[in-house]
Amino acid sequence: MKVFNKHYKTVWFTPESNEIQMIDQTLLPFEFKIVCLKSHLETAKAIKDMVVRGAGAIGVTAGFAMAQAVIEASSKKNPLEYIETAKQTIEKTRPTAYNLFYAVDKVYKAGKDSVEAAITMAQNLAKEDEACGRIIGEIGNELILPDSGILTHCNAGWLAFVDYGSALSPIYKAFESGKNPFVFVDETRPRGQGARLTAWELNHAGVNHKIIADNAAAFYMSKGQINMVITGADRIASNGDVANKIGTLEKAILAKEFGIPFYVAAPNSTIDQVCLSGDQFIIEERSDEELLYHEGKDISGKLVRIRMASPGSEGLNPAFDITPAKYITGIITEKGVFKPDEIMRTFN
Amino acid sequence: MKVFNKHYKTVWFTPESNEIQMIDQTLLPFEFKIVCLKSHLETAKAIKDMVVRGAGAIGVTAGFAMAQAVIEASSKKNPLEYIETAKQTIEKTRPTAYNLFYAVDKVYKAGKDSVEAAITMAQNLAKEDEACGRIIGEIGNELILPDSGILTHCNAGWLAFVDYGSALSPIYKAFESGKNPFVFVDETRPRGQGARLTAWELNHAGVNHKIIADNAAAFYMSKGQINMVITGADRIASNGDVANKIGTLEKAILAKEFGIPFYVAAPNSTIDQVCLSGDQFIIEERSDEELLYHEGKDISGKLVRIRMASPGSEGLNPAFDITPAKYITGIITEKGVFKPDEIMRTFN
Repeated sequence: MKVFNKHYKTVWFTPESNEIQMIDQTLLPFEFKIVCLKSHLETAKAIKDMVVRGAGAIGVTAGFAMAQAVIEASSKKNPLEYIETAKQTIEKTRPTAYNLFYAVDKVYKAGKDSVEAAITMAQNLAKEDEACGRIIGEIGNELILPDSGILTHCNAGWLAFVDYGSALSPIYKAFESGKNPFVFVDETRPRGQGARLTAWELNHAGVNHKIIADNAAAFYMSKGQINMVITGADRIASNGDVANKIGTLEKAILAKEFGIPFYVAAPNSTIDQVCLSGDQFIIEERSDEELLYHEGKDISGKLVRIRMASPGSEGLNPAFDITPAKYITGIITEKGVFKPDEIMRTFN
Repeated sequence: MKVFNKHYKTVWFTPESNEIQMIDQTLLPFEFKIVCLKSHLETAKAIKDMVVRGAGAIGVTAGFAMAQAVIEASSKKNPLEYIETAKQTIEKTRPTAYNLFYAVDKVYKAGKDSVEAAITMAQNLAKEDEACGRIIGEIGNELILPDSGILTHCNAGWLAFVDYGSALSPIYKAFESGKNPFVFVDETRPRGQGARLTAWELNHAGVNHKIIADNAAAFYMSKGQINMVITGADRIASNGDVANKIGTLEKAILAKEFGIPFYVAAPNSTIDQVCLSGDQFIIEERSDEELLYHEGKDISGKLVRIRMASPGSEGLNPAFDITPAKYITGIITEKGVFKPDEIMRTFN
């Protein structure tokens, strides 16, 4: 997608120089900078430090890192041991990211054949991610009526993948098709991925949008200004229950109450066929500092971290919630739009 | 209520010196400071600048300001004109605050008799506010079961009134009665009155509580940890529809979905008998800076304002929403607990 009118991907790999380049997402939305990672160790550190984030982008980057390690190994005394150690290093960066293990494993296995096979596999995983996003955009766009008001939560845009994204991809396609969508961007507290990343993406793409407090969605639904909701998914159970950023459940319940269609857009790889129901997902409880503090630019342009909440009080900070299938109108994947109860028989 | 173990009211009036003193709520939760306002113009500015906030406290302060104007008028060339102008000035400060108009009008009319009558009326309105809060606490406490998890939104504590508060008063009473309530404090973006004021109050009162992102209420409801919701109200229509802080509607819909009782606690004076339905309320749209920026303390303890949201994007910032009567289990007033549809026949 475009940044300052130039096309970028979130992350890309140049095997000839063994370099991975990526947008430093820790600096967004205030600074746009490409970092260059010259070894699998540098890349692993970048994954750990959340320079890259989003399930799709993490997976692809981890695959690239594994390919870097395979390239590096060829000049080492003990290449096999080097690769094994590198695999463990990469896998330890984000131990809950399913896509990471999937990608590392694919590239690792290809590397058993040849360096070239590892590189090709890593590049193919990136291409697949990109293709999924593009197709999800085309399929999802068919659900969007002209001049729609669309609510989205968190960031499931191109920054979370290699390009296009999941929830935002249909919106980009609708925008390109001249349908003039208007996006209500949930701030998405506590980390503010909506106000910081989704707004940044939409602004650079030229899509009409406004940031709203997470509290304001029902207000705009009650006024008839929100015609559909599209969010991403971190994981989808085979019964159609969806784990996604905290607050997704609230938006889904509100949408149902107001009779507004609620769509989840995610690549097929997000479906966890082993998991029969959302009850089985383990919800990550994160530090309450994310809620009590926030970072932003002060008047002089300096990045500052402030305490927002009353000193002396603590917080509770569940990172995700489970949206039961009954609240979900449809799940948009690269294979089509499915009702949640069709997930099991379609993909199993 | 107590601050650092000393009893304070939110605002008080000393007619002898024509001075109003109040807690500067713009400095909370980081600094506790009493400001002194020596004229109705200073007081009107304080209301507008939200040095005082909350329906009850605004109403009482506006009544005090009107009494200040009546006192001031006696030394003016054209006292009647002075009072008329002052009335308009005060009324313009917060056009959505019904209590403001109610109090100003009462003191204004009393002022037609004498300066003393205006002062007495203003002081009586403050005493009434305090008494209402106390009685709402006693009545509301009867609805609270031991060891309840209670969600509250925004700040309808003593800081929003003269003392005790509305939504928090039953919680304080339950706490004093040894019922051990646990309060889930909605952060209440964009201004964060929950994380900043309600948490501050509860912390000083010693009530168990945790701050949560507004996005997390449904999560804790789905876990069965929230047993009831109590919020305040800015205005109640005679059909039982409630205008309150943005996000109240969301919590009410969620509570209904999970079968959790949703109570609104407010003094009888909050009921706008002329207003037949919430559709008639005009919703104040506030500056998007409240959403895009936030103030807090940096690591050195300095108050800093930071931009949280992506530069280049704008926000929408409705200050209130309307919760239709159908979502409300009961309205707790100083006269008892009423079903929303009883409001019209009970109070008209």
